[in-house]
Amino acid sequence: MAPQQQGRPGGRDAEVAADGQEAAVILAQARAQVDPELRRAVETLPTSLRRIARYHFGWEQADGAAAAEHAGKAIRPALVLAAVRALGGAPELAVRAAAAVELVHNFTLLHDDVMDRDTTRRHRPTAWTVFGDAGAILAGDALQALAQRLLAEDPHPAARPAAARIAACVMELCEGQVADVALERREPDQVTLDECLVMAEAKTGALLGCACAVGGLYAGAGEEEVAALDGFGRQAGLAFQLIDDVMGIWGDPARTGKAAGADLAVRKKSLPVVAALASGTPEAGELAALYGVVGPEDGPPKEGELEAMAVVVERAGGRDWAQLHAADRMSRAVHQLSRAVPAPEAADGLLSLAEFVTRRSH
Amino acid sequence: MAPQQQGRPGGRDAEVAADGQEAAVILAQARAQVDPELRRAVETLPTSLRRIARYHFGWEQADGAAAAEHAGKAIRPALVLAAVRALGGAPELAVRAAAAVELVHNFTLLHDDVMDRDTTRRHRPTAWTVFGDAGAILAGDALQALAQRLLAEDPHPAARPAAARIAACVMELCEGQVADVALERREPDQVTLDECLVMAEAKTGALLGCACAVGGLYAGAGEEEVAALDGFGRQAGLAFQLIDDVMGIWGDPARTGKAAGADLAVRKKSLPVVAALASGTPEAGELAALYGVVGPEDGPPKEGELEAMAVVVERAGGRDWAQLHAADRMSRAVHQLSRAVPAPEAADGLLSLAEFVTRRSH
Repeated sequence: MAPQQQGRPGGRDAEVAADGQEAAVILAQARAQVDPELRRAVETLPTSLRRIARYHFGWEQADGAAAAEHAGKAIRPALVLAAVRALGGAPELAVRAAAAVELVHNFTLLHDDVMDRDTTRRHRPTAWTVFGDAGAILAGDALQALAQRLLAEDPHPAARPAAARIAACVMELCEGQVADVALERREPDQVTLDECLVMAEAKTGALLGCACAVGGLYAGAGEEEVAALDGFGRQAGLAFQLIDDVMGIWGDPARTGKAAGADLAVRKKSLPVVAALASGTPEAGELAALYGVVGPEDGPPKEGELEAMAVVVERAGGRDWAQLHAADRMSRAVHQLSRAVPAPEAADGLLSLAEFVTRRSH
Repeated sequence: MAPQQQGRPGGRDAEVAADGQEAAVILAQARAQVDPELRRAVETLPTSLRRIARYHFGWEQADGAAAAEHAGKAIRPALVLAAVRALGGAPELAVRAAAAVELVHNFTLLHDDVMDRDTTRRHRPTAWTVFGDAGAILAGDALQALAQRLLAEDPHPAARPAAARIAACVMELCEGQVADVALERREPDQVTLDECLVMAEAKTGALLGCACAVGGLYAGAGEEEVAALDGFGRQAGLAFQLIDDVMGIWGDPARTGKAAGADLAVRKKSLPVVAALASGTPEAGELAALYGVVGPEDGPPKEGELEAMAVVVERAGGRDWAQLHAADRMSRAVHQLSRAVPAPEAADGLLSLAEFVTRRSH
């Protein structure tokens, strides 16, 4: 595929691109560009780790047989390439960096699933349930190393600052996960909304921001533009997390890939829930009483229990707050983007991606 | 400390340096050079991760109070600096790289302890027993990232190839740990000596080799010299592992920091044990029968049980084999070193370190 075909369709074509269509095209193009690099990189892993990585990426079944693709949406590599394009750089020179960002994302997924004991990812059993905790931890470790090796071997002058930025981002992601684990263990009334927002920014916003910033670096952008791109990705990432949390309570299981009310079943302290708990409404107290920590010994939720909880969260204003706050974060994202990319046409690809991930109806 | 004072004492001073004294001096100097860089780097970690890292390095107690130092011997950073010196480079320019290698080593220790459920490290409770699995996993992840950030921010021309080499080494370390976990789960008679040697080379030899190779890169050495330095470290690393395994069975607890026969108590498939099992002697069958997997439900070992096992391993030739094989690996190491560093005086620092770690009586 020639580089000029990978650009966002401009002019009258843009009219067709309404309603997430454009983002879908950008995502598909990014995957087509980055997937071969990603696969080549994973092929260089030692045998056992390669097998676990190939399973995790959805390329193989546990026994090594080919699998129907269940890979992620490649939002982060798409952000890298879209940011390069927005700043007038050559996206084809940033494919390796985009693959590195996707490797880092997947290293954190492998590790988070071990710590959170999550058993399903992308509609399949998580790696640790198949290969054991050690296998998933080590495959994650190796993916982080692989990401850094790609950058260390990339002759582009931006590779070195990108490597430093990605490494710093990993530390922030880890701090976010430490906070998440700690928050999940506390009593519901011992958790503040601010703490949860800080945690979500570190855990989700940081890597989306980093992806955009890396794209800026590869386009030769200056420090201020790179910082603004980072801010754009962070704010969009927080909007994304808020909507993801809304979907985790009220979303359609066929679209989310999770059971209805899955977050409520495990008493996850997601943002709408914490907002509801902090609302000062009569429902807040009701919710706090319902929302104790549950363990395997509690068995499956009772008939209608999760639906009733969702109603309480909604009545306490958790759903409205999350949606309003997501919109606020999106407007902050747009503001940051305008600082990095003043021309609206150039910013369009990044905006489409941000809108796509915060709608999640596609 | 001025650089010229950090060099190995040459000429007549060298006579004083017999019997590990010289190695002790080199190790102490390396620690004095690398420790400040390491501490500065760890200080840049986010709060929660910093706390875990500071505990792990032995600088702090779990509650944040200052601790009596229990840090490791800094063999790997010492190898980096000694290799730079052996090749005629400037060790003071490689301090950051030496710190990066030490960070990588400690990241793998944090993770290995989680996977192996080891509860003691450097005479203290392991990090996961204090901060939980998630804390130790995330602190390890962050230390790997920190190592790569140090290199990405290092202006030395060798920083980039060193970063690639260290990342490749991490993948090999992970593969070694996958193999180790898998071997420990198999029946004793299902494990071959060759598999164990390959595993030990990946798990222990690879990073010692990488440390020497990184030193070579920072001295501007050519590809062949760097490869020979890597080979030296690998072979010395295997010798070290063989002797470490001998100490794990017959070592003095006051020196090893582990209980007498600790490796036998957990039925570790260490190299002397596997050699004994593969010896074809009558004792091999006896040992196989004794050496089933044990779990917590088996309780502590019976009076005299471990001593009897140690005798069987020794009678089957496991101890002699390990010591002879360690000597063989050391002679291979010396041969590799002579390829990289033909002048014996220049090679002396590296040789002292190799001899020190394979004696372990200091």
